[in-house]
Amino acid sequence: MSKKFVLIITHGDFGIELLKSVEMIMGEQEDAVALGLRLGDSVDDLRSKAEEIIVENQTMSKDIIILVDILGGSPSNIALYMLKKYSNINLITGVNMLILIEIFQSREVVEETDELLEKAIDSSINGTKRYNLN
Amino acid sequence: MSKKFVLIITHGDFGIELLKSVEMIMGEQEDAVALGLRLGDSVDDLRSKAEEIIVENQTMSKDIIILVDILGGSPSNIALYMLKKYSNINLITGVNMLILIEIFQSREVVEETDELLEKAIDSSINGTKRYNLN
Repeated sequence: MSKKFVLIITHGDFGIELLKSVEMIMGEQEDAVALGLRLGDSVDDLRSKAEEIIVENQTMSKDIIILVDILGGSPSNIALYMLKKYSNINLITGVNMLILIEIFQSREVVEETDELLEKAIDSSINGTKRYNLN
Repeated sequence: MSKKFVLIITHGDFGIELLKSVEMIMGEQEDAVALGLRLGDSVDDLRSKAEEIIVENQTMSKDIIILVDILGGSPSNIALYMLKKYSNINLITGVNMLILIEIFQSREVVEETDELLEKAIDSSINGTKRYNLN
């Protein structure tokens, strides 16, 4: 079964810290990198860095899962560019801790990337809830 | 109409960076604070800090919206403790950029906190999507 490589791209450092927070809970994860676009950063540099990571991991026959914060803005533009340029790339928008935990928990046991992504999105939708005891 | 105060609590610094990333896009936001629990931090200290913020803002008659990463672990335990102890507190799990942007965009125009939270959850569910051009 193909290994599943996770690339997180967000505005600012929030994706980088999200990965660290999940690793605080689950332990260090292989095949996961987070990139952030800070104010004043070059979008071209970020795109090159993302592309380098993708090419390197596709060479090792890994499936690529890109997670971004929102549709719109440079992180998702870079992700969509990669989707058009390379095959076997998947993108989920709306990244949160639920999605990332589900992917890390399930990627060793769920063979199909399609099924894994569906599971991750379900986890997020089911875990995004309101609590009110008033 | 009551002002709506947002308190984000997460494992690690990801909530703190999420708030900064959203402010990078939308500009600085009033009535929003993020707290993080780092490895080795005292949960009691975090709870006290959260409680102080909540009491201070409730004194100013603001509605409190707590956003946490996942249900389970100290951030959500602290939030649930506050829900039991104080009235007019709301909690959403699964925080991401979509939820935060929706709350900041809508909290000045949507009077009812109930309606605002529903809108925020809808935004997250509708914006958590998979894209695949293969």
